[in-house]
Amino acid sequence: MANSPSGDSVLDRLVRILDAFDAGTPSLTVSALARRANVPRASAYRLVEELLRHGLLAREGGEVRLGLRLWELANRASSTLDLKRVAMPFMEDVNQVVRQNTQLAVLHDDEVLVLERLSRPGSVVNQASVAGRMPVHLTSMGLALLAFSPAPVLEGYLERHGDRMRSSHPDLRRELAHIRQTGYASLEGFIDTDTTGVAVPVLDRRGHALAVLAVVVPRGSDLLRPAVMALRTAARGISRGLGEMPPG
Amino acid sequence: MANSPSGDSVLDRLVRILDAFDAGTPSLTVSALARRANVPRASAYRLVEELLRHGLLAREGGEVRLGLRLWELANRASSTLDLKRVAMPFMEDVNQVVRQNTQLAVLHDDEVLVLERLSRPGSVVNQASVAGRMPVHLTSMGLALLAFSPAPVLEGYLERHGDRMRSSHPDLRRELAHIRQTGYASLEGFIDTDTTGVAVPVLDRRGHALAVLAVVVPRGSDLLRPAVMALRTAARGISRGLGEMPPG
Repeated sequence: MANSPSGDSVLDRLVRILDAFDAGTPSLTVSALARRANVPRASAYRLVEELLRHGLLAREGGEVRLGLRLWELANRASSTLDLKRVAMPFMEDVNQVVRQNTQLAVLHDDEVLVLERLSRPGSVVNQASVAGRMPVHLTSMGLALLAFSPAPVLEGYLERHGDRMRSSHPDLRRELAHIRQTGYASLEGFIDTDTTGVAVPVLDRRGHALAVLAVVVPRGSDLLRPAVMALRTAARGISRGLGEMPPG
Repeated sequence: MANSPSGDSVLDRLVRILDAFDAGTPSLTVSALARRANVPRASAYRLVEELLRHGLLAREGGEVRLGLRLWELANRASSTLDLKRVAMPFMEDVNQVVRQNTQLAVLHDDEVLVLERLSRPGSVVNQASVAGRMPVHLTSMGLALLAFSPAPVLEGYLERHGDRMRSSHPDLRRELAHIRQTGYASLEGFIDTDTTGVAVPVLDRRGHALAVLAVVVPRGSDLLRPAVMALRTAARGISRGLGEMPPG
């Protein structure tokens, strides 16, 4: 539909334009945006004008950034809304009790997508940011999500990424079985060497992960076991709040 | 660009398609979507296919809904992200102390756009939902935002909507002056007759509202004055967290 000579559609270009922004680059000049999105300059200028008119982009000084209208459209009927609404009070409970950053994430396109994050002043460094992505094999969240995925999802993932994971996880199947048995994943210092991630799945009635609830604690801390208890308690509450009673 | 015979562009249609979903209608069949978005069926089917391919829409049974990829693109570099990240711990504090639903909103397109909401089980009815819009003149949030808007924003608003507000607010200018003087807006039962909204602006260094922080309390409750204190304290914390020290 409406393809340019190069064969990509208006929508292809639109997605590349929106994708050019991220937490580290929240605003761009139109020419920088055109380069980053690999869209010809003239075409970028026309598309940006139209996006500004619809409020999907907004001007900020001489640059443009994502508009509030885009945020509104994407959030108003989002499939994440129910999950976040139900999870939030339980996340606050964990945040109050464990006193470390608390986050909620899902598996999406073979990566960990962070849906929500509650921060605490003074808690340890944490790389997760809302709507940010993290690698499955380097995070406790990813391993917990993988361990509690339906078999076809797990097998598909291993087929696509198993080789790449071999160095960090030489016996991944055994590791995942262990996570399924204990009900949580923890991973020491893969991303930040001073921290340990602890993650517990939010299960549906078939025992598959709808999401993962996690905290990051200081490495070697005696917080790990208590954090697992708090996370498991909260994760059960979220399942129940969603009308899903996990087995066991 | 890429206009159809009817003169609207791919982007016009895309925005109408995304706009067809809301919290009450999170999923639609493609034909219902085409009707609601006023897009010809054949064109809707083509556009939906492309949106599915990009993950901006997702299939759910025989219907489609907004995709996680759209949520990700819209949230990753959103201008609301900093505000929400800074505001969230303070919102939790208010939520813990006042024990009623707490919300954060901004003025957008002459309406109140709710950015975040923390709910409490057992708190009073509250119509606000995340990414939902509410009328300025029927909410304490709207009045607080208006009272602390820069003069051109306020005058523009009054020019466009002053007549419509006359019945509910016969002396709006005096009302807004009173809000500016006391530092908060409260409104009894305009939307739900059993509740009172209380709203306090989050101010920038020039004394203009960056956002509004609000709770909904039972009507006639003696919570109102304490809630104002809690909100003002939290709102100052948010301003400070954003590097804005409001005057006074």
